[in-house]
Amino acid sequence: MAYEYTIVREVEWRHTDMAGIMHFSNFFYFMEAAEHAFFRSLGMSIDTIDPEPLGWPRVHAACDFSYPLRFEDSIEVHLLVREKRQKSLVYTIVFRKLNGEPRREVARGTLAVACVKRDSATGKLTAVPIPKVIADKIDAAPAEALGT
Amino acid sequence: MAYEYTIVREVEWRHTDMAGIMHFSNFFYFMEAAEHAFFRSLGMSIDTIDPEPLGWPRVHAACDFSYPLRFEDSIEVHLLVREKRQKSLVYTIVFRKLNGEPRREVARGTLAVACVKRDSATGKLTAVPIPKVIADKIDAAPAEALGT
Amino acid sequence: MAYEYTIVREVEWRHTDMAGIMHFSNFFYFMEAAEHAFFRSLGMSIDTIDPEPLGWPRVHAACDFSYPLRFEDSIEVHLLVREKRQKSLVYTIVFRKLNGEPRREVARGTLAVACVKRDSATGKLTAVPIPKVIADKIDAAPAEALGT
Amino acid sequence: MAYEYTIVREVEWRHTDMAGIMHFSNFFYFMEAAEHAFFRSLGMSIDTIDPEPLGWPRVHAACDFSYPLRFEDSIEVHLLVREKRQKSLVYTIVFRKLNGEPRREVARGTLAVACVKRDSATGKLTAVPIPKVIADKIDAAPAEALGT
Repeated sequence: MAYEYTIVREVEWRHTDMAGIMHFSNFFYFMEAAEHAFFRSLGMSIDTIDPEPLGWPRVHAACDFSYPLRFEDSIEVHLLVREKRQKSLVYTIVFRKLNGEPRREVARGTLAVACVKRDSATGKLTAVPIPKVIADKIDAAPAEALGT
Repeated sequence: MAYEYTIVREVEWRHTDMAGIMHFSNFFYFMEAAEHAFFRSLGMSIDTIDPEPLGWPRVHAACDFSYPLRFEDSIEVHLLVREKRQKSLVYTIVFRKLNGEPRREVARGTLAVACVKRDSATGKLTAVPIPKVIADKIDAAPAEALGT
Repeated sequence: MAYEYTIVREVEWRHTDMAGIMHFSNFFYFMEAAEHAFFRSLGMSIDTIDPEPLGWPRVHAACDFSYPLRFEDSIEVHLLVREKRQKSLVYTIVFRKLNGEPRREVARGTLAVACVKRDSATGKLTAVPIPKVIADKIDAAPAEALGT
Repeated sequence: MAYEYTIVREVEWRHTDMAGIMHFSNFFYFMEAAEHAFFRSLGMSIDTIDPEPLGWPRVHAACDFSYPLRFEDSIEVHLLVREKRQKSLVYTIVFRKLNGEPRREVARGTLAVACVKRDSATGKLTAVPIPKVIADKIDAAPAEALGT
């Protein structure tokens, strides 16, 4: 069982805006990229049809921004499982700037996702319990790992 | 003085993802577009050098998603000033799907922005009081408008 | 039958990059938005299952950029059908800046799209003739409209 | 002197659209990312003030798409200098899918960029010769490398 995963991203030109800093929307992209890499690290894909076709729509996303990022900055995106519920997962995502001194936290986000099944006829999404084969691989992070 | 503004956006092809719904990141784009349109509606631009060069970095952004949007859906993005502080503004943004029945709320977001001055030598951002010429045009929404 | 359609877009904050101008990728987004609006103007959707499920993957896209666009510029995106072939369409897209003097052309693009059917079992895309109900509504622009 | 550089990118969820494939705009993002990584591989940054503040606006971008990419595909983005002119560079970019058999070319693009100086008073961009310190590090690729 695992409760965390870390990816590294570079601030690319297209991530910047006319203020010369990374546009805040990219923090949300990076959260999702870390979530999907976490699943891959467990030998799964977020896009699965096994044991059945599942989706993971976002029900809540939030981020606090404390320090601006600039072109070619290197960012650690550290995802932790904050809550493991029957039909949903809540992640904490800590962003740290790796280049420059000091190595600092620059943002901290939350992502809550529901496990859903899609009715192929109507397209309607229904929350379902996380299948055992997936749930057995994921654990909630201990309080000390969450830094709270 | 004004405390709200509404824009309408259509879900374009590029907003969708392989789940067939609008990617959640676009809700954050639409929040920002509504904020900037609100400033224009008051005869200002979010990108101003009058009375001095100012920036409005995001310090917090959040959104709860309650209903999926699809290609060619039409969305009302209703921005309200939830809090007017000395050096920052907090907005509530209500998203409603305009096509189809019933006309429903599909998401609700929060955007908190700081008023900053940028040191042209160091690039450092410093929070400053919102200039009077701007503050005089913006009011906090009454509780009943916020639907709380 | 129709051979052209025009939409207007504003340069939003998120379209800009650290050079202070609109990132070139957005010209491609606007081309596609004009193509889809063209279909809607003919009472159709680019996402159709009638008379059969069709897709319109891009086979070629190109753009020449002659003038930079900035935040809050207003742009006319003028799409013209340059070629109507049996299984594909080629569009010319002319971008004009509407604010400021003179009203000038700022970019000119090309988009070539194929009409395809998707095999639901394998996911394989196969080029097919444009269905008559669609082809009958679309005409190639006269040479003088293309300004060539 | 160098004439090529290769980066690898994964197709992320946000790159996909409702057709279930990577949206074509991302090929243009990847071209630019490869260009900037090429500069870094030469000990430079595309964002430089040494020997003087320079910019590299795109004057032309094009891409032919021959095979659809899907979520979690791995792509080699191979950039080659096709032409080295006094005031501009033209790149060929070859995209290859690394996972699955056969390892195939999926798209081929062109990017032409001008070397410009920006007038800090007016913001006007003026094409200038590529500074010697930069030009000395970049070479045009031999015809056989371009596969022509």
